[in-house]
Amino acid sequence: MSALTKNKLELDTPCLVLDLDILEQNLRKVQAFADRAGKKLRPHAKTHKCSALAQRQMEAGACGVCAAKVSEAEALVKAGIDKILITGPVATPQKVKRLVDLLATAPSLIAVVDCKEGIELLDAALHAKKTTMNVLLDVDAGLHRTGATPADALGLAEYIRSRPALRLCGIQAYAGQVQHIRSYDERKATSLKCLQEAAAVFRELRAAVETCTIFSSSGTGTFDIDAAIPEVTELQPGSYVCMDADYLAIGSAEDAARFAMFAPALRLLTTVVSNNQKGFVTVDAGLKSLYKDGGVPQIIGPEHSGMVYDWFGDEYGKVTCPGHRKAPPVGTVMELVTSHCDPTINLFDQYYLTRNTDVVGVWPIDLRGCSQ
Amino acid sequence: MSALTKNKLELDTPCLVLDLDILEQNLRKVQAFADRAGKKLRPHAKTHKCSALAQRQMEAGACGVCAAKVSEAEALVKAGIDKILITGPVATPQKVKRLVDLLATAPSLIAVVDCKEGIELLDAALHAKKTTMNVLLDVDAGLHRTGATPADALGLAEYIRSRPALRLCGIQAYAGQVQHIRSYDERKATSLKCLQEAAAVFRELRAAVETCTIFSSSGTGTFDIDAAIPEVTELQPGSYVCMDADYLAIGSAEDAARFAMFAPALRLLTTVVSNNQKGFVTVDAGLKSLYKDGGVPQIIGPEHSGMVYDWFGDEYGKVTCPGHRKAPPVGTVMELVTSHCDPTINLFDQYYLTRNTDVVGVWPIDLRGCSQ
Repeated sequence: MSALTKNKLELDTPCLVLDLDILEQNLRKVQAFADRAGKKLRPHAKTHKCSALAQRQMEAGACGVCAAKVSEAEALVKAGIDKILITGPVATPQKVKRLVDLLATAPSLIAVVDCKEGIELLDAALHAKKTTMNVLLDVDAGLHRTGATPADALGLAEYIRSRPALRLCGIQAYAGQVQHIRSYDERKATSLKCLQEAAAVFRELRAAVETCTIFSSSGTGTFDIDAAIPEVTELQPGSYVCMDADYLAIGSAEDAARFAMFAPALRLLTTVVSNNQKGFVTVDAGLKSLYKDGGVPQIIGPEHSGMVYDWFGDEYGKVTCPGHRKAPPVGTVMELVTSHCDPTINLFDQYYLTRNTDVVGVWPIDLRGCSQ
Repeated sequence: MSALTKNKLELDTPCLVLDLDILEQNLRKVQAFADRAGKKLRPHAKTHKCSALAQRQMEAGACGVCAAKVSEAEALVKAGIDKILITGPVATPQKVKRLVDLLATAPSLIAVVDCKEGIELLDAALHAKKTTMNVLLDVDAGLHRTGATPADALGLAEYIRSRPALRLCGIQAYAGQVQHIRSYDERKATSLKCLQEAAAVFRELRAAVETCTIFSSSGTGTFDIDAAIPEVTELQPGSYVCMDADYLAIGSAEDAARFAMFAPALRLLTTVVSNNQKGFVTVDAGLKSLYKDGGVPQIIGPEHSGMVYDWFGDEYGKVTCPGHRKAPPVGTVMELVTSHCDPTINLFDQYYLTRNTDVVGVWPIDLRGCSQ
């Protein structure tokens, strides 16, 4: 950022901006909700990939943060954040080594396991270092992506308890398949049903094992629904902090008021770079700066109403203009809400921070590319 | 890379590996083709995003490289490569400033323009610095993404010639819409037709303007076809160097022999991290490490024949196993050919270099994230 850049429309593009006023509202609202519901909040850093933002979430009252991968946890620890739950099961020698190395500087790390192989590897590596660590058993809540089946869960929990270097602290269950169901009633019924078996597993463990105090669950699409489950102790929403067009589209139905709780803090700025055709212009953000997943990004601002973005190759986008509108000239900057925020954020190295139209700072996206 | 890592299957995943033997063959074959055809080769660095690989292309005989954006050119210049054509039109004050600043260390840079606004901005900025630069006129070859229409091209060329700081060196025309047409005959007919008008523009300019010596064009899907156009002076293929499943799928039809010219040098390694379900396993590469564009990535190796990858969220993939095969255990490493190589490469910071199964080095993907 040039020292002279004051207005966000002067930034070179494509770039990501975070509206701090909206962001702070999102942080406050979700924390207030969790506090009222008597649940802990552990926001997922996989969405924003930014330790400075994770720090804000902690300051707002979060009990810690989630990381999807060991490499994300490494970046968070490097930035001084150590209350981390790694939500992906650790199951290979390479990952176990990195995890155990990281534990030396972040002893409060919590890992997740979902199979005997992973449990044995982790236990052996910890034993070799003469140390122990906290783990959660990942329980499948119908997504079938990771997690022990509910039928196998208690047996696997027993296996964890038999390993001297592992301290079983509870379970994790994430029903990712439910988060984007359009109808609130259907989403509610499905989420409660999906988490029922995991809740039963947790009740058994909590009754039998003193250290089993954590049932970590939920996402932006169901955090208010899942908060009604008594067994759930902490909520893991990620996208709420930035928001995206996919989640906002859910809010357009009967639960508009509920989703109006969060507003889009994240915007992508793109500029018209070619305007030699009728009915559309070419902008400078394509596949490599706006991840093509979910619906199309939404162009915001009344001056561009009715205009529609679509991808136009790796480096470009095509913005179609409705018949009655003059195509915007070369140099026009447009502000977009991404379709799915997580993978688009992972394409950039920094957020520009704004208040109203002023650029007031930069946060590095220091977990960007941490896919291991 | 650990100093002890010798075999690529010991690398932590997900990661990208480049098979140097295959890569070097691809480099040699395309250069030999261009030499025989009497064309210059200017490979596109937007694909590989790696200055070390661009250097290899130059050493193999390329006249220079292409960059899609000014920020890519900045990274190449920083690495000592200065024979660069920036293929995206420069049209905003921010980009013109960066370009003119870069010109001070890389005077042989060539920029592309496609409208009066861009021409005026660039000319004024060069004039203020008391310098000049080489430009190509971008001519639309039917993709309608960037470029002057053929009808406007000669007028715009005249306008460039009227600006004292710009030296018009020729044209660029890229028919991106043609590259993936399945049928060779149809692709050939379409590409030759699309470049016809641009060729006519170039003939006029070449006859009238002594400095107009460059007609830069083509891609991996049509480089051999376009080499038959006498006016074309240089070829811009990008994907040939790494190859991907989308281009290899084209080669499965009548022009298999032609596409057999290149082999997939780029592989993504991913590991099974969960195996609690029947018929499929979960691997550690999802949307954030395998860009979801084009078809699905291809799993290679006889030990995994018949297995099919699909995305399973931001961090995971689902590998379905045919009925007769036992699902691979947790820890199994799989090797994939990406569907569309460019945007997947842009998700990583380095390539591991291999010969056979040995890891022999690392190249930074130093143009990664250069979307401006």
